[in-house]
Amino acid sequence: MATAFPFSAIVGQDEMKLALLIAAVDPKVGGVLAFGDRGSGKSTAVRALASLLPKMKVVAACRYNCDPDRPAEFCEDCRVRATKGGLKSAQVPVPVVDLPLGATEDRVVGALDLERALARGEKAFEPGLLARAHRGFLYIDEANLLEDHLVDLLLDVAASGENVVEREGLSIRHPARFVLVGTGNPEEGELRPQLLDRFGMSVEVKTPDNLADRIEVVRRRDAFESDGEAFVAKWAKDEAKLRKKIVGAREKLSSVSVPDVTLELAAKLCMALGTDGLRGELTLMRAARALAALEGAKTVTDDHLRRIAPSALRHRLRRNPLDDAGSSVRVDRALSEVLG
Amino acid sequence: MATAFPFSAIVGQDEMKLALLIAAVDPKVGGVLAFGDRGSGKSTAVRALASLLPKMKVVAACRYNCDPDRPAEFCEDCRVRATKGGLKSAQVPVPVVDLPLGATEDRVVGALDLERALARGEKAFEPGLLARAHRGFLYIDEANLLEDHLVDLLLDVAASGENVVEREGLSIRHPARFVLVGTGNPEEGELRPQLLDRFGMSVEVKTPDNLADRIEVVRRRDAFESDGEAFVAKWAKDEAKLRKKIVGAREKLSSVSVPDVTLELAAKLCMALGTDGLRGELTLMRAARALAALEGAKTVTDDHLRRIAPSALRHRLRRNPLDDAGSSVRVDRALSEVLG
Amino acid sequence: MATAFPFSAIVGQDEMKLALLIAAVDPKVGGVLAFGDRGSGKSTAVRALASLLPKMKVVAACRYNCDPDRPAEFCEDCRVRATKGGLKSAQVPVPVVDLPLGATEDRVVGALDLERALARGEKAFEPGLLARAHRGFLYIDEANLLEDHLVDLLLDVAASGENVVEREGLSIRHPARFVLVGTGNPEEGELRPQLLDRFGMSVEVKTPDNLADRIEVVRRRDAFESDGEAFVAKWAKDEAKLRKKIVGAREKLSSVSVPDVTLELAAKLCMALGTDGLRGELTLMRAARALAALEGAKTVTDDHLRRIAPSALRHRLRRNPLDDAGSSVRVDRALSEVLG
Amino acid sequence: MATAFPFSAIVGQDEMKLALLIAAVDPKVGGVLAFGDRGSGKSTAVRALASLLPKMKVVAACRYNCDPDRPAEFCEDCRVRATKGGLKSAQVPVPVVDLPLGATEDRVVGALDLERALARGEKAFEPGLLARAHRGFLYIDEANLLEDHLVDLLLDVAASGENVVEREGLSIRHPARFVLVGTGNPEEGELRPQLLDRFGMSVEVKTPDNLADRIEVVRRRDAFESDGEAFVAKWAKDEAKLRKKIVGAREKLSSVSVPDVTLELAAKLCMALGTDGLRGELTLMRAARALAALEGAKTVTDDHLRRIAPSALRHRLRRNPLDDAGSSVRVDRALSEVLG
Amino acid sequence: MATAFPFSAIVGQDEMKLALLIAAVDPKVGGVLAFGDRGSGKSTAVRALASLLPKMKVVAACRYNCDPDRPAEFCEDCRVRATKGGLKSAQVPVPVVDLPLGATEDRVVGALDLERALARGEKAFEPGLLARAHRGFLYIDEANLLEDHLVDLLLDVAASGENVVEREGLSIRHPARFVLVGTGNPEEGELRPQLLDRFGMSVEVKTPDNLADRIEVVRRRDAFESDGEAFVAKWAKDEAKLRKKIVGAREKLSSVSVPDVTLELAAKLCMALGTDGLRGELTLMRAARALAALEGAKTVTDDHLRRIAPSALRHRLRRNPLDDAGSSVRVDRALSEVLG
Amino acid sequence: MATAFPFSAIVGQDEMKLALLIAAVDPKVGGVLAFGDRGSGKSTAVRALASLLPKMKVVAACRYNCDPDRPAEFCEDCRVRATKGGLKSAQVPVPVVDLPLGATEDRVVGALDLERALARGEKAFEPGLLARAHRGFLYIDEANLLEDHLVDLLLDVAASGENVVEREGLSIRHPARFVLVGTGNPEEGELRPQLLDRFGMSVEVKTPDNLADRIEVVRRRDAFESDGEAFVAKWAKDEAKLRKKIVGAREKLSSVSVPDVTLELAAKLCMALGTDGLRGELTLMRAARALAALEGAKTVTDDHLRRIAPSALRHRLRRNPLDDAGSSVRVDRALSEVLG
Repeated sequence: MATAFPFSAIVGQDEMKLALLIAAVDPKVGGVLAFGDRGSGKSTAVRALASLLPKMKVVAACRYNCDPDRPAEFCEDCRVRATKGGLKSAQVPVPVVDLPLGATEDRVVGALDLERALARGEKAFEPGLLARAHRGFLYIDEANLLEDHLVDLLLDVAASGENVVEREGLSIRHPARFVLVGTGNPEEGELRPQLLDRFGMSVEVKTPDNLADRIEVVRRRDAFESDGEAFVAKWAKDEAKLRKKIVGAREKLSSVSVPDVTLELAAKLCMALGTDGLRGELTLMRAARALAALEGAKTVTDDHLRRIAPSALRHRLRRNPLDDAGSSVRVDRALSEVLG
Repeated sequence: MATAFPFSAIVGQDEMKLALLIAAVDPKVGGVLAFGDRGSGKSTAVRALASLLPKMKVVAACRYNCDPDRPAEFCEDCRVRATKGGLKSAQVPVPVVDLPLGATEDRVVGALDLERALARGEKAFEPGLLARAHRGFLYIDEANLLEDHLVDLLLDVAASGENVVEREGLSIRHPARFVLVGTGNPEEGELRPQLLDRFGMSVEVKTPDNLADRIEVVRRRDAFESDGEAFVAKWAKDEAKLRKKIVGAREKLSSVSVPDVTLELAAKLCMALGTDGLRGELTLMRAARALAALEGAKTVTDDHLRRIAPSALRHRLRRNPLDDAGSSVRVDRALSEVLG
Repeated sequence: MATAFPFSAIVGQDEMKLALLIAAVDPKVGGVLAFGDRGSGKSTAVRALASLLPKMKVVAACRYNCDPDRPAEFCEDCRVRATKGGLKSAQVPVPVVDLPLGATEDRVVGALDLERALARGEKAFEPGLLARAHRGFLYIDEANLLEDHLVDLLLDVAASGENVVEREGLSIRHPARFVLVGTGNPEEGELRPQLLDRFGMSVEVKTPDNLADRIEVVRRRDAFESDGEAFVAKWAKDEAKLRKKIVGAREKLSSVSVPDVTLELAAKLCMALGTDGLRGELTLMRAARALAALEGAKTVTDDHLRRIAPSALRHRLRRNPLDDAGSSVRVDRALSEVLG
Repeated sequence: MATAFPFSAIVGQDEMKLALLIAAVDPKVGGVLAFGDRGSGKSTAVRALASLLPKMKVVAACRYNCDPDRPAEFCEDCRVRATKGGLKSAQVPVPVVDLPLGATEDRVVGALDLERALARGEKAFEPGLLARAHRGFLYIDEANLLEDHLVDLLLDVAASGENVVEREGLSIRHPARFVLVGTGNPEEGELRPQLLDRFGMSVEVKTPDNLADRIEVVRRRDAFESDGEAFVAKWAKDEAKLRKKIVGAREKLSSVSVPDVTLELAAKLCMALGTDGLRGELTLMRAARALAALEGAKTVTDDHLRRIAPSALRHRLRRNPLDDAGSSVRVDRALSEVLG
Repeated sequence: MATAFPFSAIVGQDEMKLALLIAAVDPKVGGVLAFGDRGSGKSTAVRALASLLPKMKVVAACRYNCDPDRPAEFCEDCRVRATKGGLKSAQVPVPVVDLPLGATEDRVVGALDLERALARGEKAFEPGLLARAHRGFLYIDEANLLEDHLVDLLLDVAASGENVVEREGLSIRHPARFVLVGTGNPEEGELRPQLLDRFGMSVEVKTPDNLADRIEVVRRRDAFESDGEAFVAKWAKDEAKLRKKIVGAREKLSSVSVPDVTLELAAKLCMALGTDGLRGELTLMRAARALAALEGAKTVTDDHLRRIAPSALRHRLRRNPLDDAGSSVRVDRALSEVLG
Repeated sequence: MATAFPFSAIVGQDEMKLALLIAAVDPKVGGVLAFGDRGSGKSTAVRALASLLPKMKVVAACRYNCDPDRPAEFCEDCRVRATKGGLKSAQVPVPVVDLPLGATEDRVVGALDLERALARGEKAFEPGLLARAHRGFLYIDEANLLEDHLVDLLLDVAASGENVVEREGLSIRHPARFVLVGTGNPEEGELRPQLLDRFGMSVEVKTPDNLADRIEVVRRRDAFESDGEAFVAKWAKDEAKLRKKIVGAREKLSSVSVPDVTLELAAKLCMALGTDGLRGELTLMRAARALAALEGAKTVTDDHLRRIAPSALRHRLRRNPLDDAGSSVRVDRALSEVLG
């Protein structure tokens, strides 16, 4: 694997970095979509996240990375093995799986294992990218260019948390819960509303427009590309600090309380904006809670809600032909109305 | 399999829940189609039904779940085995089969069993999803996105109650009677009229618009996702009660009488609305009868008819260019005219 | 096979039932096309015909159902076997073959028998649906949705009475004469004129619009679906009577005379309507003759012609931009002009 | 093979029958295209020709029907066999090969012989329809519906008289000279000009519009379909007479002289009509010569030219936007101008 | 192979015949494209060239026809064999390879040799039409109908003189330098400018418009088709004379000088016409030099340039919306301006 | 391989030659795109570069040309082998890999090695063109005609420096860093903005418009094609001199300093032109530094920046509807504003 640019060495892009950290703390928040110009460093940030994340505990040799502490969510293999006793656990890096645009459907959902089929005449399943991404991240660069049938597949799986495979004589079902991370360039084709809806948060990334930042970006990039190892070593301490912060937040997460009054505010905000369904409120609550956890707070406050609302709601607005303000402006306006 | 959200824990959505219960009592009513916004919980309700339903009696080891009490409807295998005597029966969960959007035609209708073909040179049939759904439910999320050739297949099978396979040198015919359950978002492509017509009932699902309900949905959802098992345990009693009600209604169903005057009202209602064919009347009668059975009534009354009419007829209206009232309004108006 | 609804228990639909009976008496009349609303029972009638028809005599073990009494029309296999002497005959049900919309071309026309090819390295032909339908009925539900290349195939075969297979290294030709029976919904795509022309008769099926009939249909349908066997038993006597009538008409058919004056009237009628070619006249003569036979008459009269003309000609009219009367009205008008 | 309707029993259709007889006398005239309404008997005439034609002499066991009297045109196999001496000859019916619309390219041009490839690992060629049609007729019903890539293939072969196969690792070239016979319905898609140009003659077929002829057609058709063998026996003598006439004309053909003045008239006629290239003149000369031979004349006269000109030239005219007369009228006009 | 019509027996068509002779003398001139009406004899001329050309010297058994006198251009096989010594040479006919419109890509560029792959498990290359055409002619009848992906392939190869194959696990590169000869009918789809640019010369072929020539063409054609061998024998002497002229011109070619002043005229002519790039000048120089060689001249003169300019430049002009003169007229005008 | 035209013998085309030399000195500059008329010699220059470049050091027998001096960038194979010690190095020509337009996806990205799969039942990876181009050049002639899915693949790889293969049961990832060199004709379809953005520099190539240059080009081209070896020998000394200059520049590159003030100017220039992201500045800095190195300078000056700016920025401008000046003019104008 190529050496990744350190997450902490990224200049600016605060909204995107926060969204990624929140998704790392509570994966149920539901994915991050980064919009922005070409060359603004969207991919760099996502690839940086991969080497930042702490390891996770899995059932050793499980092809789906089952969590040994949650037997109710075991895959079929683990269920069978558990009854025989003696499942071992292991520590592995959190998977950050690339879904390249040229990927074929069989590699995404998994397929008949041809090697075993030919060699031993057995009809065995060979897990695909969705299986590999379970409990981790699935990364789609230029998600707006993804073929429709792959988008349909992703939506199905993202909705149910399971990958149901009915093809080539196989009939398999396995857990597949992952954080979708996508980048997109709004100028090259829109994302379908259902796919948008599956992303918990969306962020806008822009090229810095002050001279000092631009020069710093170019300098760091040049330094990294000239001698990647030296550059990574220089930033190792910052990376460790950030990693520790994530681990801490994850532990605190379940004990952070969400007062009823906060939930009410979230609901009012969504009703004011007219978002479809309740996914907006759910995401808002979870993202605010994760933010609180990251900052060591014990209770979610209006301020947490206010800070995370643009990322959580901006991509859920319907086009309003009578209101040509941008999405961010409309979220801000609703925040003022509801939160005062 | 992922743990399902309990059916009884669903907040609101009364029309949809009733339609699903009616289909569970009398499968011949013909399927339920749920329309609604993204994130309004359509899929949740359907997946919840699966774990609610009581087990059913089948011929042991029959690949088509033949009913041992109805030998006239046996598949060919069971017919042959029955002549040799000694068919055993078994109790299995009512199948609720997912038809994923990416499913290939061979997995839907069944196909040549390649494993046996290669290993033993035999031309054997490997049943598909339609066979597996026999006597149960076939669930299509986002039915409006289903490919046309799969829709054609489904219509054929739904009309005849048989799956006729003529491909890859196979010539097979087996019973395939199931309740179609679909969800659709009217904004993303319409359903073809013939597919609409195959659904006995249609329901509209909306995001609740009162604050208390919204907060309750978010709370329950968060509780379920944080600790699914605890949540399910908490609702087990309600689930058992509901299950018992379904079983009772099924037993009573054949003894519920439908007076001629009620049938006349049903016919008048359909004529007033100008629905095509007689499928509307048939469905109306059956749905009203199942509703009566669920409520322990011995005779179908005008009130049963009135309550179920919107679900049974709403999706059967032709567009009337001179009447821009919504379907539900038009059904209500006809009810007032006919039933007074 | 699913139990069929009895032909005699069908309420109303007199034109369609008559057309089907005529095709059963003289298959050379050329097929029946039923147009009509969804849910008006078109498919039911056709499926009912299958269990009504008496058995037919075939060469035992012939894959093409050759008629032992017409050696000139033998398939190649029968020709070879006949020279060796000792062909046996058998009685089999008249085939009513479904052509499902998802059928692949190889199953329709027949294909290389892969099992024998792989097992014994032989290039043998495995007959398809066209072979199986020989001397019987080929049924296409929603014929207007059939793929173009299958329509082309059907037209070729219907025109020549032979199935010519040139594919996969095979070069086979076998007799394939059958009655095409189709249903179509004129709202979902038109039939190509050549396909229309291959149907001897067309009928329009409507939902009954009097209350008593509607209730009777719903009652019978509900009774049939609740206990099919009992329902069929109840109608067995009517079915037997009708079957006998068909057999009688077939025997009398060749002795029914068609006077020159009747043929002249048929020709004048077609010229008045401007139908293409002479297929209209030929069909008119044959259908009238079969009708006479069904009714025990020895000579075809003007009245027979008049009664069958709408079914035989309605679908052969060209669109006349200056005459916006419906096809049925135009046929009636021509009948008045020519027959007085 | 199904019994064919006798050529001599066809009522009317004189232009078409003459064109087919001329092509039978001199195959180099280049094919016949019959345009006309549905049901006007185009296919019947062509299928009738097949059983009328006398047998032809071929090299025994040659897969391409090589003519033993023309060694310069031998296929490669015959060339090799001829050097070893002892080629035998045989009499076979002139092939009239159907090109069904569903034919696959491999069956048309020939393909790898899979049976030998799999069994013996040899790369052998299995000739297709083009090979089988060599020295005979290739019949395309509804030629206007033929797929474009098959039309391209036919044009290539018709132009060069050879079938060049470059596919599946094969590189084969064999003689393929045949008379193209096609039917088409001008209302269902036009023929490409290049394909039109490959037909030597075109004829228009119409439904007879006098009562007596129409009744006679219906009577004969009904008699033939009721008892084909008896009908054929009744017309056998007429068929034999016509066959003898064809054989006589073939023998006389090479001794019929074409005076320079006739060629000049042909050239003037084509120049007056502005036909492309010289194929018009060549066809005109050959068709007139064959007509003379059929009638026992020793020299081609202006009258022969005049009678055959409409068939030979009608389909070669360019659309003239300033002259909306039909093709036949324009040919007649040019005949008057040039021949007086 | 079918007997070809003799090149010398072609009536008229002087421009086309000259262009073909020039390409035969110096293949680097770059191909000939013949435009014209159907039936004007374009294909006949090209096929005639094949039997006219003298044999060429090749490395014996080389699959790419390597020239034993140019070791620097050897294929890989010959390079290896040359190091072992003892390459033999042979005389073979100059290849004139047909590229039929139905050819598949694998036959054009070459492909995996399936026979060896299956039999011996070796991944060997089986050369295609491009290999076979090396040092000869590649003939495309109706080049404007060629599929786009084949055109792309041809352009690639024509530009580089090499065929680079990257498919089916093969990675092969072999020399492929040939003269492209195409025919096209401008009415049936245009040629892409890049393909046009690859043809060194273009010629227009017309049907002769004087009576004597037309009759002579018809007479010769009829004679050739009636007895091909006799006709060829009659023209053998003319053919031999022409062949000798070509051989002589090839030998003289390298000694024909091109004065600077002539090159300057060529450049001025191209600049006056505004042709893209320098391919026009290069072709003009080479074609004029080959013409000089054919006529035995030692130096290229203005007259040579003037005579060959229309063929060399006509198809390289851009459409000029302000100048609606035809291409030939514009070339003539530029010639007058530049050459006086 | 065909002999290449010597780089130093190219007449004119200074901008293109400089861009290619810069890419040869610092591959991270990111590729060269040459626009221009047909026949202006774009391909010639690129093919010439291949034989000019000095050899490079690789791990012996590594399929990805790993650099033995950069173990951190080793492929998986080299990593494994390195742990066992004793990696050897070798000198190989810098790869200049052609991506032919007809290349299939499996050959571009690599695929299952069928030979090993069939022979030994192993699932091994066979590297494709992207692997072969690592550390070298990937050349796409007529890049604007490349199929979209190949462009997507290239963008993915060019962005990440890795080739991620997820297909046919393979899951491979290997380094793939190469200089993209493309040619395009702006008249035949535009390049997608993302692909444009991946090219560090773009140059415009024109046909020379003075007589002397044109004649010199034609003379040199004719000499080269008549006797390639002699021509190459004549230019060998110039080629060696140029090669030495490249090697020198590479060594000096890392010691050339880029003052902050220069970076500021680059940033101002990009902001004035409104280019997306920071790729413009990065490229500008690197190209100017490589230019300085080629000329032996120790520090990048404004002059270096000014000279390379058009090539580095011209293709990054957005279309400005209010400013119809060409790209080059707009870059010049911005240079005047910013640099004075």
